[in-house]
Amino acid sequence: MALRNKLMVINAGSSSLKFKLFQMGQAGEGGALSAIASGVCERVGDPSASFLRAKANGSEESKAQHAMPDHTSALGAVAQYLSSAFTGDFTKEVHGVGHRVVHGRHMSQPALISAEVRSTIEQAADLAPLHNPPNLMGIDAALQTFAGVAVFDTAFHQTMPPAAFMYALPYELYTERAIRRYGFHGTSYNVDTSMGLTPLEGLMMGTRCGDIDPAITSYLAAKGMSPKEIDQMMNKKSGFLGLAGNADLRNHAEARFGPHVGGDAAERSRLAVDVYIRRVRKYLGAYFVHLDGQVDAIVFSAGIGENSAPMRREFCRGMEFAGVKIDEVKNEGAGVGKAADVAAADSRVRILVLPTDEELSIAQQTVDVIAAASSSAAAA
Amino acid sequence: MALRNKLMVINAGSSSLKFKLFQMGQAGEGGALSAIASGVCERVGDPSASFLRAKANGSEESKAQHAMPDHTSALGAVAQYLSSAFTGDFTKEVHGVGHRVVHGRHMSQPALISAEVRSTIEQAADLAPLHNPPNLMGIDAALQTFAGVAVFDTAFHQTMPPAAFMYALPYELYTERAIRRYGFHGTSYNVDTSMGLTPLEGLMMGTRCGDIDPAITSYLAAKGMSPKEIDQMMNKKSGFLGLAGNADLRNHAEARFGPHVGGDAAERSRLAVDVYIRRVRKYLGAYFVHLDGQVDAIVFSAGIGENSAPMRREFCRGMEFAGVKIDEVKNEGAGVGKAADVAAADSRVRILVLPTDEELSIAQQTVDVIAAASSSAAAA
Repeated sequence: MALRNKLMVINAGSSSLKFKLFQMGQAGEGGALSAIASGVCERVGDPSASFLRAKANGSEESKAQHAMPDHTSALGAVAQYLSSAFTGDFTKEVHGVGHRVVHGRHMSQPALISAEVRSTIEQAADLAPLHNPPNLMGIDAALQTFAGVAVFDTAFHQTMPPAAFMYALPYELYTERAIRRYGFHGTSYNVDTSMGLTPLEGLMMGTRCGDIDPAITSYLAAKGMSPKEIDQMMNKKSGFLGLAGNADLRNHAEARFGPHVGGDAAERSRLAVDVYIRRVRKYLGAYFVHLDGQVDAIVFSAGIGENSAPMRREFCRGMEFAGVKIDEVKNEGAGVGKAADVAAADSRVRILVLPTDEELSIAQQTVDVIAAASSSAAAA
Repeated sequence: MALRNKLMVINAGSSSLKFKLFQMGQAGEGGALSAIASGVCERVGDPSASFLRAKANGSEESKAQHAMPDHTSALGAVAQYLSSAFTGDFTKEVHGVGHRVVHGRHMSQPALISAEVRSTIEQAADLAPLHNPPNLMGIDAALQTFAGVAVFDTAFHQTMPPAAFMYALPYELYTERAIRRYGFHGTSYNVDTSMGLTPLEGLMMGTRCGDIDPAITSYLAAKGMSPKEIDQMMNKKSGFLGLAGNADLRNHAEARFGPHVGGDAAERSRLAVDVYIRRVRKYLGAYFVHLDGQVDAIVFSAGIGENSAPMRREFCRGMEFAGVKIDEVKNEGAGVGKAADVAAADSRVRILVLPTDEELSIAQQTVDVIAAASSSAAAA
């Protein structure tokens, strides 16, 4: 029997399927996980255009056409790629698969995927209509071959206090319809969250509006927009796209931080960046007060956090009063994909730039859940 | 000719009409205004039940039935009351009337009410449907007799920078539909604002939800609620009423700060107060960062701000890191209607409890607008 010493993580979107494969260390090594392959199937559902980009064992990324009418065939293409990249029967070496699931409602822990867990994910789809249904497609495809664990974005935030997760809405919306703040990307960080019932609340994003006066929806409805149009507008036509005409943040950052360029497009780019900075600072201030100023570190991660030194500088500007002082040279030198502390030596609060690795976090949780399930099965 | 040395301020609601009458000082006194009468007509539109509560010249408040089918008759009852309280023909002594108008769209200054200004107020009614229409009824009633000046709640906030007033929505909503953050109660304070296109955004209120994930409206619409029902829910059935079953804040504060009481009602009262405190603190932190910590004072005013010492204590708790330290004894001793500094002696930031006097502010602006209009008429 082949040793089941590989762990797969899957993050399935509506027309994509991302994977990452980890080698599991010996138990004596504390079960350390090291990534040995990763890739993404794109344009799943469009067999004439779909393809797989992947790399394994430190190789360069390769790209190959594969007909992928659905997520099952996408996973088949991944298995085929991995079988050729590694010796032996790949499918027999997989200990389990961890699935990123965006919305888990009340689920506060990752869970082995049973019929009941699957049903919870299905029921939560109306709270994350863009995410949970494709997550389920990935799960269903993988469950045909592998044991699966669902790791919920929302799970961490189940530890928030009620004063943080309750909306000031009729109480029955909470008790009867589970309307509360859930938060997302819980696999990536462990503090309070600006995201809410859905990922829309909080900061503005590439195409999402973030916080607005909720009465704007009533106003637009009274002017003849349908709820669906309003929802599409808030999720798909707002944010940087809405304010500045496109969602290409590098472009807007260049207009804001690069040599001055005149004209309406550049003006709107600058406006969008200024709105964004102001909103990030609003949450920074809010969380400092929530924590009574007892902040150990501000952590920047992923997209803008890792990529934009001028943004980090602006976020932290003028926050010396709260013990935050950035070192501009260190900040400029911090690069993508490596950890750095960019705080000045005399800053009371550390300012960390940390690459996020949600897949590793999901993989570790998956190992733990399978171990717990095995030991409780052995005890029974 | 009688000396026109009295100034009236009117704040007209849908079924009420509040007034305050000021005596204008001599020009040599800097035009100082002193309140000499005030009152409110209630249940306007319900002639069998409508009445006037009022006091003048330091007298006790009196209450009298008056049939008030509309705002014109309400104003008539006020004129009758004032004519009997003061000698002479009261209507000939009024220099002008200042009207509180909630929404003035782009209007950045108070304005003498012309046909054009009246039309602006009318057009802004869809942004403040609960407020502007009754404001107009008060204006129309008073214009039959007196020159009028509109003082807009929204006017001050016209000085906010675009990064503060723009939503991350499609830019056309701003250019074509004037959707932006306006802010309200601008007659009462002069800083940034948590209120937005409408007064709904920001803190939770007695029956208003304040900030929520805007996608909640889409979610409820998909579940079958109409936009109107959702709007009613957010404005009339949320806030303290929604979370705790009633909007009587004294009751909830007693459950939260008084001797411990068990049971579900008390639990929900405490929850509502904790949600409220957390949200106030969120904005406190946000504004400290907006101001780079260079804060001279936190000012508490009106309802909770003047009335609740324990609330003020909780708002400021743990903010020593930002230079805020309350003196608990001074705080407990601060009473309604008088100014106090309740900060500790070594607090860098002053913590002021100040009664708001929106009517006085409206009266002063009204005097200024009439003076400017007279001098430009004289110059023409």
